[in-house]
Amino acid sequence: MRLRHKPWAVEELMKRDHIVIQNPQSIAGKWKSHFGEFKKLHVEVGTGKGQFLKGMGELHPDTLFVGVEKYQSVLYTAMERVEEAGLNNVKLLAEDVSNLSDFFAEGEVDQFYINFTDPWPKSRHEKRRLTYNSFLALYERLLVKEGEVHFKTDNQGLFEYSLHSFSLYGMILNQVSLNLHESGIEGNVMTEYEEKFSKKNMRIYRCEAKYRG
Amino acid sequence: MRLRHKPWAVEELMKRDHIVIQNPQSIAGKWKSHFGEFKKLHVEVGTGKGQFLKGMGELHPDTLFVGVEKYQSVLYTAMERVEEAGLNNVKLLAEDVSNLSDFFAEGEVDQFYINFTDPWPKSRHEKRRLTYNSFLALYERLLVKEGEVHFKTDNQGLFEYSLHSFSLYGMILNQVSLNLHESGIEGNVMTEYEEKFSKKNMRIYRCEAKYRG
Ligand SMILES: C[S@@+](CC[C@H](N)C(=O)[O-])C[C@H]1O[C@@H](n2cnc3c(N)ncnc32)[C@H](O)[C@@H]1O
Ligand SMILES: C[S@@+](CC[C@H](N)C(=O)[O-])C[C@H]1O[C@@H](n2cnc3c(N)ncnc32)[C@H](O)[C@@H]1O
Repeated sequence: MRLRHKPWAVEELMKRDHIVIQNPQSIAGKWKSHFGEFKKLHVEVGTGKGQFLKGMGELHPDTLFVGVEKYQSVLYTAMERVEEAGLNNVKLLAEDVSNLSDFFAEGEVDQFYINFTDPWPKSRHEKRRLTYNSFLALYERLLVKEGEVHFKTDNQGLFEYSLHSFSLYGMILNQVSLNLHESGIEGNVMTEYEEKFSKKNMRIYRCEAKYRG
Repeated sequence: MRLRHKPWAVEELMKRDHIVIQNPQSIAGKWKSHFGEFKKLHVEVGTGKGQFLKGMGELHPDTLFVGVEKYQSVLYTAMERVEEAGLNNVKLLAEDVSNLSDFFAEGEVDQFYINFTDPWPKSRHEKRRLTYNSFLALYERLLVKEGEVHFKTDNQGLFEYSLHSFSLYGMILNQVSLNLHESGIEGNVMTEYEEKFSKKNMRIYRCEAKYRG
């Protein structure tokens, strides 16, 4: 049952609040214990339809994954995926990434993921890119000391920009890959955009950016 | 007349000491005034046959360019190029980059170039890569405050490594290009390796790494 074009249904189904968390403010600071006894909390920003988090949730049952996506219509598919897979370690927030500090306490998050985020190629839109300085500062506040942001994109311009932005912020770039699917890396979980672009033989770029702590 | 295979001739011709400088120690600290009244001093490490420095010398007559290359047989061609072009602002050193601090004073160099340097892909050879930590420290000592290293390569692995190494050192990555010849940049002077690889349609990677000062 696909209800994306029926707004009332989306509203209705968002009420499956064991997956799409409705009052995340009240959980700030206690995510790992609130839903069980998770060892790690990993947050994906701009989750889209949730293919990545579903795969990660299956691979890493001790980690709690939270996906943040501002469009309910998109998040709806993610919710279906999580429900169908019967995953209790993947939660979703229908929120804007800018508001993350309302939902997580300082130092609570063990890792961030940014996958195929909107490139906003015009320089006057730089501030909207999820690798812009102010977002890097936001992630740092919520992360453990020396925390990491794992970043993948098909977009050359966004990757070039993000290398600049990460380094300007003083972050250390690890595991840089300029052609991920030719690099023979293991344990890579594809996102829906990644699958689409790699089928077209486009390069996927990836890096892990680490705060100095 | 090509004399690369005649060692005696190389020896002989290296004595054209207005181009291949024989006593660089004695010039340390006064390169810009020693050969005229140059505004800037730019040093290329691993110069090879000098195509880049010849082109740069022609474009920027107010800048003194010094190329450092450890193999005389290779540097010989560079010397011929500089001589034929009648350039008085390109000088060459038949030296190993490791010894640079013998030839330049602290803060004397305005910019470094590293072009298509040997990748040394095995991790046990990491220390030989000209973007390894100890070389970055060496360049920093010789550079002006907030000086820059401009880096080009065709080698994906070396570029990935160097982004890591620059960021680990705390440098800021500017003008990152993951496909230089498709980027529409202006004023790019090709090196001999660059010309060869770009003819084969290989991507050229480039960035400007800046010290924080
Ligand atoms: C291009 S899609 C990629 C989706 C998925 N991560 C993937 O790799 O397939 C980017 C998603 O990020 C979401 N997004 C972008 N900026 C956001 C923000 N500030 N807050 C929440 N979601 C955001 C968009 O709504 C969109 O669904
Ligand atoms: C692959 S070639 C590239 C030459 C030229 N820069 C180009 O782009 O065409 C690298 C050159 O760097 C020189 N080189 C490498 N390590 C060096 C070192 N430590 N000191 C001096 N020269 C070095 C090598 O001898 C070689 O000629």
